[in-house]
Amino acid sequence: MPPECHPIADRPQEQEKDQVRISELSRRSGVPNATIKFYLREGLVPPGRATSATQAEYDEGHLRRLRLVRALISVRGLSVSAAKEVVGSLGEVEGDTYELLGLVFGVWPGADGNGPAGSGGGEGRGGGEDHDEGEDADVDALVAELGWDVTEFSPARKTVTQTLNTLRNLGLDCGWRDLVPYARLAERTATLDLDQIEGPDDPLEKAERAVLLTFLLEPALLALRRLAQESEAAARYRDQGLP
Amino acid sequence: MPPECHPIADRPQEQEKDQVRISELSRRSGVPNATIKFYLREGLVPPGRATSATQAEYDEGHLRRLRLVRALISVRGLSVSAAKEVVGSLGEVEGDTYELLGLVFGVWPGADGNGPAGSGGGEGRGGGEDHDEGEDADVDALVAELGWDVTEFSPARKTVTQTLNTLRNLGLDCGWRDLVPYARLAERTATLDLDQIEGPDDPLEKAERAVLLTFLLEPALLALRRLAQESEAAARYRDQGLP
Repeated sequence: MPPECHPIADRPQEQEKDQVRISELSRRSGVPNATIKFYLREGLVPPGRATSATQAEYDEGHLRRLRLVRALISVRGLSVSAAKEVVGSLGEVEGDTYELLGLVFGVWPGADGNGPAGSGGGEGRGGGEDHDEGEDADVDALVAELGWDVTEFSPARKTVTQTLNTLRNLGLDCGWRDLVPYARLAERTATLDLDQIEGPDDPLEKAERAVLLTFLLEPALLALRRLAQESEAAARYRDQGLP
Repeated sequence: MPPECHPIADRPQEQEKDQVRISELSRRSGVPNATIKFYLREGLVPPGRATSATQAEYDEGHLRRLRLVRALISVRGLSVSAAKEVVGSLGEVEGDTYELLGLVFGVWPGADGNGPAGSGGGEGRGGGEDHDEGEDADVDALVAELGWDVTEFSPARKTVTQTLNTLRNLGLDCGWRDLVPYARLAERTATLDLDQIEGPDDPLEKAERAVLLTFLLEPALLALRRLAQESEAAARYRDQGLP
């Protein structure tokens, strides 16, 4: 079994108190007081249980929701309104991890705030209004070769198409077949990623972890490739040119 | 054997003429006339063979040098002066592919224009002035576990350290051990990368291809991971939450 990143909040002392003030919510999430109040005003985090005219208490559900909102805005880089749309659609997909992950990753149209509002799940998929026929022919061929089960909405498709076009424009005759061995390794990376989010049962925690690990690991994965290239180059070529 | 991106310039009709004018150099490289003239003035590309007071002819060596300069500036994002330093050091390392790759990837200090000038190869390595003791302890442990043969200069080290720190600050208790399985896949990715540059014998062409494939493939590799995640999520979770 691969190692796994555990949420620090799993430590028992963190769960002693069920209902907490906003300052404690801030301490436990690392999100500043003022930011929490902003999220509350914007409806990104539901209101707490009022204990007086000016005070309220919050529970574990608020903490998890707050952490997911922070991940969507600070890490995934969504706008406040796009993040609001995503968390607003959570209820519709809560029991379905596949739909939940598609929502937080922006696979479905609308989840990025670009497409039709509120189309977080359900019938919207399969329409393909945004899919430019022909333009993604390389990616369609690649996906078919790999046997991947992906929708036609993912922005990742366009990235692959653009990369192949750029390489060709710069004089390297690269086609989708050149990407197949890389894609097989990406499959194994994705398996590791999904293993990391198997842990938590709570869907909000699963979603938060998926966003954090997917987006934050990106620079590290590229850095590991650079280091591995250096090591592989040393094995193949070092001292080759010396007398 | 994995498929390989072939340089389009390998097509025989491209090599009919040995000595060409600047306009033909532009056509064959895709670099605009004015940009080539700028590179010539800045000494990034050596002067051609003068055929009159105002005209000169260029050969395959100029074309390869021009393509590498373009890759360093437009793709790797180096400044003109940093690119000049890199191509200026090429002569010192030309016979040694390991040194050449370290130079174009910016593994050695100086190659990014940040460190001491002209320290493209040789004695500069091993000094470690820029290496913050302790700060990279996670990366040192990771590299030791993997048995990787890497210098202490690569900027990729800091990226890994920063990612682990960010994940911890956001409440996920990730350590370098969590990265080991990802690093093993990065090793295999790097093997594919180095296979792609085995082709050309010319060191400038090798260097150009290394820069193009390393930097341009980055967004595509991340996009393949996203698509693979979607497919893996479909396999694990789809319809799980439906009645």
